[in-house]
Amino acid sequence: MQDPVARTIERLDQLAKIGRVSGQTGTTRPGLSSEEQQACELVASWMEEDGLTTSWDGAGNLFGRLPGSDPSRAEIWTGSHLDTVPNGGRFDGALGVVVGLEAVAALRESGPPSTLAVVAFRYEEGWRFGGGCFGSRAICGALPPSELTTTDANGVSVRDALEALGFSGPGPAEPLPGSFVEAHIEQGPVLEGEDIPHGVVTAIAGMAGFAVTFTGASGHAGTVPLADRKDAFLAAAGFAVELREEALRVPGAVATIGDVRIPGGARNVVPGVVRASVDVRAPTSEALTSLVDAVPRLAQGAAARSGCSFETELRWLTEPVPMSAQVRAAIHESAAELNVPIVDLPSGAGHDAGILAARGVPTGMLFVRSLNGGVSHRPDELTGHDDIATAISVLTGTLARLGGAKQHRNPRIRRPSFQPS
Amino acid sequence: MQDPVARTIERLDQLAKIGRVSGQTGTTRPGLSSEEQQACELVASWMEEDGLTTSWDGAGNLFGRLPGSDPSRAEIWTGSHLDTVPNGGRFDGALGVVVGLEAVAALRESGPPSTLAVVAFRYEEGWRFGGGCFGSRAICGALPPSELTTTDANGVSVRDALEALGFSGPGPAEPLPGSFVEAHIEQGPVLEGEDIPHGVVTAIAGMAGFAVTFTGASGHAGTVPLADRKDAFLAAAGFAVELREEALRVPGAVATIGDVRIPGGARNVVPGVVRASVDVRAPTSEALTSLVDAVPRLAQGAAARSGCSFETELRWLTEPVPMSAQVRAAIHESAAELNVPIVDLPSGAGHDAGILAARGVPTGMLFVRSLNGGVSHRPDELTGHDDIATAISVLTGTLARLGGAKQHRNPRIRRPSFQPS
Repeated sequence: MQDPVARTIERLDQLAKIGRVSGQTGTTRPGLSSEEQQACELVASWMEEDGLTTSWDGAGNLFGRLPGSDPSRAEIWTGSHLDTVPNGGRFDGALGVVVGLEAVAALRESGPPSTLAVVAFRYEEGWRFGGGCFGSRAICGALPPSELTTTDANGVSVRDALEALGFSGPGPAEPLPGSFVEAHIEQGPVLEGEDIPHGVVTAIAGMAGFAVTFTGASGHAGTVPLADRKDAFLAAAGFAVELREEALRVPGAVATIGDVRIPGGARNVVPGVVRASVDVRAPTSEALTSLVDAVPRLAQGAAARSGCSFETELRWLTEPVPMSAQVRAAIHESAAELNVPIVDLPSGAGHDAGILAARGVPTGMLFVRSLNGGVSHRPDELTGHDDIATAISVLTGTLARLGGAKQHRNPRIRRPSFQPS
Repeated sequence: MQDPVARTIERLDQLAKIGRVSGQTGTTRPGLSSEEQQACELVASWMEEDGLTTSWDGAGNLFGRLPGSDPSRAEIWTGSHLDTVPNGGRFDGALGVVVGLEAVAALRESGPPSTLAVVAFRYEEGWRFGGGCFGSRAICGALPPSELTTTDANGVSVRDALEALGFSGPGPAEPLPGSFVEAHIEQGPVLEGEDIPHGVVTAIAGMAGFAVTFTGASGHAGTVPLADRKDAFLAAAGFAVELREEALRVPGAVATIGDVRIPGGARNVVPGVVRASVDVRAPTSEALTSLVDAVPRLAQGAAARSGCSFETELRWLTEPVPMSAQVRAAIHESAAELNVPIVDLPSGAGHDAGILAARGVPTGMLFVRSLNGGVSHRPDELTGHDDIATAISVLTGTLARLGGAKQHRNPRIRRPSFQPS
């Protein structure tokens, strides 16, 4: 058998070529597209090579099962998604699927009593039709029927896209697993900064999004004295500075003003209106609430100091989702057994794991270090071979534990003999 | 003879209809357009009704002269421009021309020894081809030949536009007047705030424009901890707040960040690059220099605090232009004689008067109070009838003084008998 790490690298390389756009170095596999389908079918072929039993559900989710010795035990799932952002990297999503394949393959000869499954969830990224985590929500019965009629930029609906791929659409909620563990790249700089290869996710952060508008009075940049101005950009600037200070006081929280517009802005006109997006995230409900409450309070203060009025519209809010103590413990024990350094950290990004956890499935996430400062959603997204090797080993031990293995023999960790291309 | 104020209001109303766009309440008369030409021809007809001798130069500037008794004396000019911004108000520019007509008309019977002229300068606003103050620069021989080939959004060059109107193009510099006084609305809130109808401009503010770029690192709004961010918008926000504080310390200065862009900005992405325009203005060279020096210094500090780099590009700089002490004194004396309250103030906006003053013509400006908070370049730009009445009287006295009148009898100030529509 080929070295598992070398095989994983080669598989990531093969997947990265599906959805390569001419002139770009990254990969574009929209959810529910023929490219995502092609990636799923390639993964299905690997599942069959490894002796797994493949199946698809009506939402297009792909399952590869290794039957356990005790059919009365609930299944243990691992996996992630195979769609990408436009011109994305090769690790986001795909890593969790191919690492899952290796972990299950390592347990083929001496598997735990539970049936194990590798799952490729469909359309996680959410940019094609809006939404996102489509496949995991379908599995959990958490998909509003109206979502099937939402359309992409070309007017293709979710239902059209599913039908074109031969899927009947989401059915009634299916039996959920006894537990789920998703391996995923961190997509952030924390593990690289701490020089630790892996993380155990404590919770998927809660998130809230606001549209904030500051309204002052536009005026001539030369003729309106500073004291008479109602400068909406100064209100927004003061708000941005204070929101950061507020978020710094909340452990694990972040706040981002990512999109700022001055309608009709011109160099010689005092801005009369500024529209800004605000994104706040926090790992606990209490912390999220304190930040959500701060947004209108800080906007009011900043607006008043610049003689402006303000409006804050809460556009969405999702509560934090804590990961399962049992699954977290299984990951920690597996890493400890292998002497692999690992650290607890929250996930600031949303994942399929958050959907299953919110539905009550005992869920955990194994983060794998992102290099290059943690960049993600870009072609230069990078995770090292050694970290992929330990991810396979830690996930293998975790699945064995969750599946009820009495004793688990560590697979030998082998290093690939080649350098990354 | 019709009441001069009533006639002025009626003339402003007639001019406001030239360039009225369907569905808009303001006026659009681009410089060197057929609409601006139509406005100039209407004014020429009023000049002829008043017995003035009309002439046009090759740049399209219109002159209406009242010959003086002493041809050895230099001419005294008044006037302003007749083009407007898109959907502009009825007072900016036009007021100075029609008030000039009344002031000269009032001196027809008992004029000063100098020849008086009312001038309508072409294309002051500068938005059609760029540039601006085209006519006054042509008169001063300050027009680079290359400017004739610049084109508008439809590909029409300045030269094409002049030829279409029957003008040969700017000739060699013409004889300049002995002095020039321009009446113009303030376009700002100072006079309204101080409850004073008129201002004597001390200087046209110097101005500098910068393009400032802050460069940090874009990143996922959920996965990059605040401490690890290089948020370019936070750099720009800190810069904006500090630039205002710096400008507040410089008497008469203003600083404006009017246009801010986040290329590729999205609600869930930490801004990696922010581009901002910076406009600084100050009434003295020393004050302007201190603000110009502050821009890169403050940008550097704000960038460093956010872990960003920065670039500041000085795009243009014009030095302040002081107004003539002699012309200022003539305006003050005329106002004092009429018991009209008047106050010194700098002009933050550029004007044709600044061009003639920079060329060495003894120049002054009479500001007329803007109402509605000083809004301008908008249809709701407003100046009151009483202030127009006193503007005619003060300008009449000023022209008489500058023209060498031994004794000047005040014209009777009459109030219009109707309300503004």
